[in-house]
Amino acid sequence: MPPRKIVKTSYMLENDWVESMAEVSTETEGLWKPDENLKIIGKPVSRIDGYDKVSGTAQYTFDVQLPNMGHAKILRCPHPHARIKSVDTSEALKHPGVLAIITHENTPKIPWYDNTSFIFDPHLRYVGDDVACVAAETLQAAEEALEMIRVEYEILPFVVDTAEAMKPEAPKLYDTGNIQGGEPNVYKRGDYEKGLKEADVVVEDTFITQVAVHNPSEVHCSVANWDGDGLTVWDSTQAVFGVRDAVAKALDMPASKVRVIKKYMGGGFGSKLDAGKYTVMAALLARLTGRPIKLALNRKEQNLAVGNRPNSVQTIQVGVKKDGTITAMTLSSYGTVGAYPDGAGCHWPLRTLYRCDNVKTKSYSVFTNAGQSRAMRAPGHVQGTFALESIMDEVAEKIGMDPLEFRLKNYADKDQVFNLPYTSKRLREAYEKAASAIDWNRHKDRGRRDEPGEIRYGIGMATQIWWGGGEPPAYATLKLNRDGSAHVLAGTQDLGTGTYTFIAMVAAEVLEISIEKITVTIGDTADCPYCNLSGGSLTAPSVSPAVHDAAQLMKSKLVSAASAALEIPETDLKYEKGTIFSIKDNSKKITITEIFDKMNEQVLIATGARNANPKGYAINTFGVQVAEVEVDTRTGKVSVIRIVGAYDVGRILNPKTAENQFHGGILQGIGFALMEQRIIDNPTGKVLTAHMHNYKMPTIHHTPDIQVFVVSTADMLISRVGAKGLGEPAHIPTAAAIANAVSNAIGVRIKQLPITPDRVLNALSQKR
Amino acid sequence: MPPRKIVKTSYMLENDWVESMAEVSTETEGLWKPDENLKIIGKPVSRIDGYDKVSGTAQYTFDVQLPNMGHAKILRCPHPHARIKSVDTSEALKHPGVLAIITHENTPKIPWYDNTSFIFDPHLRYVGDDVACVAAETLQAAEEALEMIRVEYEILPFVVDTAEAMKPEAPKLYDTGNIQGGEPNVYKRGDYEKGLKEADVVVEDTFITQVAVHNPSEVHCSVANWDGDGLTVWDSTQAVFGVRDAVAKALDMPASKVRVIKKYMGGGFGSKLDAGKYTVMAALLARLTGRPIKLALNRKEQNLAVGNRPNSVQTIQVGVKKDGTITAMTLSSYGTVGAYPDGAGCHWPLRTLYRCDNVKTKSYSVFTNAGQSRAMRAPGHVQGTFALESIMDEVAEKIGMDPLEFRLKNYADKDQVFNLPYTSKRLREAYEKAASAIDWNRHKDRGRRDEPGEIRYGIGMATQIWWGGGEPPAYATLKLNRDGSAHVLAGTQDLGTGTYTFIAMVAAEVLEISIEKITVTIGDTADCPYCNLSGGSLTAPSVSPAVHDAAQLMKSKLVSAASAALEIPETDLKYEKGTIFSIKDNSKKITITEIFDKMNEQVLIATGARNANPKGYAINTFGVQVAEVEVDTRTGKVSVIRIVGAYDVGRILNPKTAENQFHGGILQGIGFALMEQRIIDNPTGKVLTAHMHNYKMPTIHHTPDIQVFVVSTADMLISRVGAKGLGEPAHIPTAAAIANAVSNAIGVRIKQLPITPDRVLNALSQKR
Repeated sequence: MPPRKIVKTSYMLENDWVESMAEVSTETEGLWKPDENLKIIGKPVSRIDGYDKVSGTAQYTFDVQLPNMGHAKILRCPHPHARIKSVDTSEALKHPGVLAIITHENTPKIPWYDNTSFIFDPHLRYVGDDVACVAAETLQAAEEALEMIRVEYEILPFVVDTAEAMKPEAPKLYDTGNIQGGEPNVYKRGDYEKGLKEADVVVEDTFITQVAVHNPSEVHCSVANWDGDGLTVWDSTQAVFGVRDAVAKALDMPASKVRVIKKYMGGGFGSKLDAGKYTVMAALLARLTGRPIKLALNRKEQNLAVGNRPNSVQTIQVGVKKDGTITAMTLSSYGTVGAYPDGAGCHWPLRTLYRCDNVKTKSYSVFTNAGQSRAMRAPGHVQGTFALESIMDEVAEKIGMDPLEFRLKNYADKDQVFNLPYTSKRLREAYEKAASAIDWNRHKDRGRRDEPGEIRYGIGMATQIWWGGGEPPAYATLKLNRDGSAHVLAGTQDLGTGTYTFIAMVAAEVLEISIEKITVTIGDTADCPYCNLSGGSLTAPSVSPAVHDAAQLMKSKLVSAASAALEIPETDLKYEKGTIFSIKDNSKKITITEIFDKMNEQVLIATGARNANPKGYAINTFGVQVAEVEVDTRTGKVSVIRIVGAYDVGRILNPKTAENQFHGGILQGIGFALMEQRIIDNPTGKVLTAHMHNYKMPTIHHTPDIQVFVVSTADMLISRVGAKGLGEPAHIPTAAAIANAVSNAIGVRIKQLPITPDRVLNALSQKR
Repeated sequence: MPPRKIVKTSYMLENDWVESMAEVSTETEGLWKPDENLKIIGKPVSRIDGYDKVSGTAQYTFDVQLPNMGHAKILRCPHPHARIKSVDTSEALKHPGVLAIITHENTPKIPWYDNTSFIFDPHLRYVGDDVACVAAETLQAAEEALEMIRVEYEILPFVVDTAEAMKPEAPKLYDTGNIQGGEPNVYKRGDYEKGLKEADVVVEDTFITQVAVHNPSEVHCSVANWDGDGLTVWDSTQAVFGVRDAVAKALDMPASKVRVIKKYMGGGFGSKLDAGKYTVMAALLARLTGRPIKLALNRKEQNLAVGNRPNSVQTIQVGVKKDGTITAMTLSSYGTVGAYPDGAGCHWPLRTLYRCDNVKTKSYSVFTNAGQSRAMRAPGHVQGTFALESIMDEVAEKIGMDPLEFRLKNYADKDQVFNLPYTSKRLREAYEKAASAIDWNRHKDRGRRDEPGEIRYGIGMATQIWWGGGEPPAYATLKLNRDGSAHVLAGTQDLGTGTYTFIAMVAAEVLEISIEKITVTIGDTADCPYCNLSGGSLTAPSVSPAVHDAAQLMKSKLVSAASAALEIPETDLKYEKGTIFSIKDNSKKITITEIFDKMNEQVLIATGARNANPKGYAINTFGVQVAEVEVDTRTGKVSVIRIVGAYDVGRILNPKTAENQFHGGILQGIGFALMEQRIIDNPTGKVLTAHMHNYKMPTIHHTPDIQVFVVSTADMLISRVGAKGLGEPAHIPTAAAIANAVSNAIGVRIKQLPITPDRVLNALSQKR
């Protein structure tokens, strides 16, 4: 397939900041000109870190080179389940260039994986589990030394298949058995049995999703360096403060003595939310050797040992009346978290997306001898949405209703779990926008299924709900200079998503100065104020209000100072582009520089905070994607032609980087729908897909036409900025929409992801 | 002379913080325990950066290595006065490894030296003036290329002797002549002519001091690196924000786009107070080449081109009554600032040190074809104190009065220039302490002068006055972590003086936590809040109150939060070691961690500021040093045996680093008294002493017994910390005290520094 043209994303976003601000603002009255639109926010702005990236000067953790730095490599267990009987490092230690080797025998017992294990633990539970770590002068010497460590393993029985692992006779990973917590996560509301009885039709089906691996372009990497009792860690992480606290705890140090720095980063998708064992190992080896130590995983290790999206087997029942009213929904699911605790539930979409009084969900998280799962771009939601939105289409077909109409029939005006109103929900507008943009009526044109010709066209829809409203704690410190330029510090992260840029934009917007005058420092626990992690689509909606707050405080300070200098009450002053004017007499004014000179001041500093979220509301993002596909019935190959999305994600701060998120999320969704899957060989427990050549990921060639509409305006109930996050919303519905489009195209449903050609051909043959 | 034992410094400092705090504190009442002494402040604490320094991991600017970094060298003018007719870089540009060459022909005209010149200016005014700058792959290639630049000079007439330069017929450096400003700096109070007439005795004499060079152990160095439109400069500087603003101005950039970083530093003594031309050159070359550029001066350049202490020729008249009352004082002085504007006045001690109603001072700053002078450890005061304290001894001898008695007779209870009370002045106590410690009565034992024996003993005293009370702006941001550890950021500098340590001490003291839990970041304009420069003994008295303020604010925040959590009014709570207790019921309490958990908080942030100084007061430091010397009348060699000092410098924060300052200041004073001098060859205009082997500096072998007493308590009128600076006070009186001791030893006064053996022998021969 030739690469397709990427259509520019369109936005319906209104420039309503000013108006909305005027509604909720009290202390800032008079600072804002309610009749003037925003100058920067909501406009497409190129990344302020663009130069660094295109010029190659951007420093990623992998680029960190320190004088006298040693390199570390981890020896990983070749067995899916084993116990170390003995480990002999004597030969390896003699290898030229080797500096130190750490194992469970010569390191403190540092609890890991929610206290189920230690950083080095003789009980090893998956192929890739950590056995030892070597530091050497060079990477090559470290790798060579790995081969020379003699480990005697007691081989233990293992299980890698999730269903097998749930059986009583399965080999056990823990004394307490393979069901995490010993029982499923169960949720009930209403009376689902009664609801099913009241239904005219009950549809039940089972859907299966695969294990996927995050595979961010930048591998996981830490560089550790000690200065006396202080430790600096350069880390490719989604949470500098989280890593700081975890490392400080692991090494029993005050948090202030651990500095974590992350400047640039090549993605994380959830796999870099937590401190890695490798980070602590680098710190231990750096302390032992008295030298800086770099520990970078390679692509294979990234595929084995730093997380994945759990698989799922989801059986859903939907009871529905003939008019389309859903009377009950149940979900029974299981999935594997791998060898250490995490969560494999994918029940949230079913619990909350549609109006339904009678719901039951039951989810098992199952231990198997495989790498631990970790949150991956909308954990649980991608799998759950695939199953839910597949069965929604099935039900609609069963009762002869248009799938969109069926969804609208069961539209939830309130949060279903907590029975709370939403701060905002424009999903209805999103449905309308997407349907009109893609000409949804083509969905009904099913006759084509049986038309002659081998290429079948199909169209399918899926909906998403996610959190993403942001929350405290997030702080930003703004330092205003005498020349009117400013510096913003925030302990957040830019995963490649545009954090640097929106911070500068918000500060520039509020201060009404050029974005070129603003410099941003993030990703440094020593120098920046605390911010929460970058995951869960938290970053923009958490950090932007903190920056806004800091800039507003700064304006208040300037107006106060101007009031003193001009001898005019603050209420009679207005701030405009770095100058404070008398409202009554425009000729009376004072600039930032003049204020500084008057105050004999060199800097003004304000630290802003993310507000608490409003009580009594649910805060969610909503969106819909419609996919158009072509299925080649000869080869089984699915081509995604076009994706149209429509979203309620609050205010768009920067359409340019928002577009990046939508495109990336959709492309990653295509990968999950059609190709990505981690395959473990059941007899040996080995991962067969631990490299990029066999773990297939989408490329630019798989990119369809993409058109995304944002139908929301700023959600000013959440914060003064009114943004919601969109990193995960962009990704959640894609696989489900594609599956529905494939079903629409070929008249038979593929209930297991990825929708590979063999599965398509198999389905087609079963249909005939 | 064998090295002498260094006697530990003693302190009379009282632990009065708590009591004094209780007096002035209002908002913190209840937080302090007024009956408990300080735990950390005032106690000797080892440098928290000690590990970095002794382990060699401390990164100085010279240590900064960046990938792909180029090295720059400056071509310097070999003539004392010239104009560039042409400069041809074509050959040099072809030299292998050369990246770029900048001259006045291919760079913007960036004003320098108070707009009297440009960074590259075809008019060159001293041997060492900047002609061109080469960037190359290696330092060697850059140095080789310098030789290949062909410059055609128009040689201009020059003058390097200060007295010659003042003559009307002297070659002129500027069209406006060689007297800076066209006229002397003149100050008058009262009627000095009347005062002289009222005197019983008038003594007049002339004193001469040499040009000295700062020669800090670390050479001047900048590393410049661009990321897009942002510039980062690693700089060995006493003023990161000053360099930031100067560079931003030179390159016409917003201040926020220039980041200046200085972690560790090997001294400055005033020569690194301002941005250097080399810093801007490194930035220009980095922009031109697209690479990081390091420009480190060498020792010769440091001796030629980055400042010196102006020489002085001071003629003083003192009128005195028989009872010792001074009736008038006049000073007429001149000195050279070198080729570009600075100040050579040394009139402050005479204007302010002693009570005198009738004073006139007249000071000429003279341009000569030599390197520009710059503030050097107590600018003007070292020279002025030498002359003033020499003539004070002369006058005392003339009227047959003990020199100490004579000084006490003219003790100034108020500031003489502004007629203001001092916030504190314990000079009288200092005299008493020093006199008793050294047994001053030996001074009277002058008979020994004429005793047989070639080694003559002498004792002499000198007094110092300096500012050093500190001032705004200085800010400190304190970030408190959930585990009770803290991080302090302040945009100040540690020149090697102990800034890191006192910041941690103040924060630890106020928060009552272990100093090990505190981490300090300073010297970074991007990440730290603004602080003023580190010079004028400003740092500790400016920055410590800002840290104190931040920590106090933090305690207030904690008490507020505890009040909410415990439901006890703030006034009924007390803070103690990270726990807040109910005063009424000690069992009701909450720890920092518990407060954080209760607040669902991860950090508390407080930014403190240096308070304004009190109005209507003079703020000064005072001190006295007594020197004991032995003079070998055969060789003329002077050996300083012992220095006893006694000081009013407010509160001592850290006796350990204070002691360092006293010892260093005294040793540098010995250098100025006995050996250091820049010598320029008058016929050629060349500096003959541009290296350490001919610019003689004192070593550990010249170190006498040193005993310093601090007689002051905290000066709580200045700030809540009550510290005054002591870097310059330590140095000011040493040379004068030694000169008086030599005079006391040999019965004839040496009126010109340094007191070299030839001058001693010459004086002895004239006496005979």
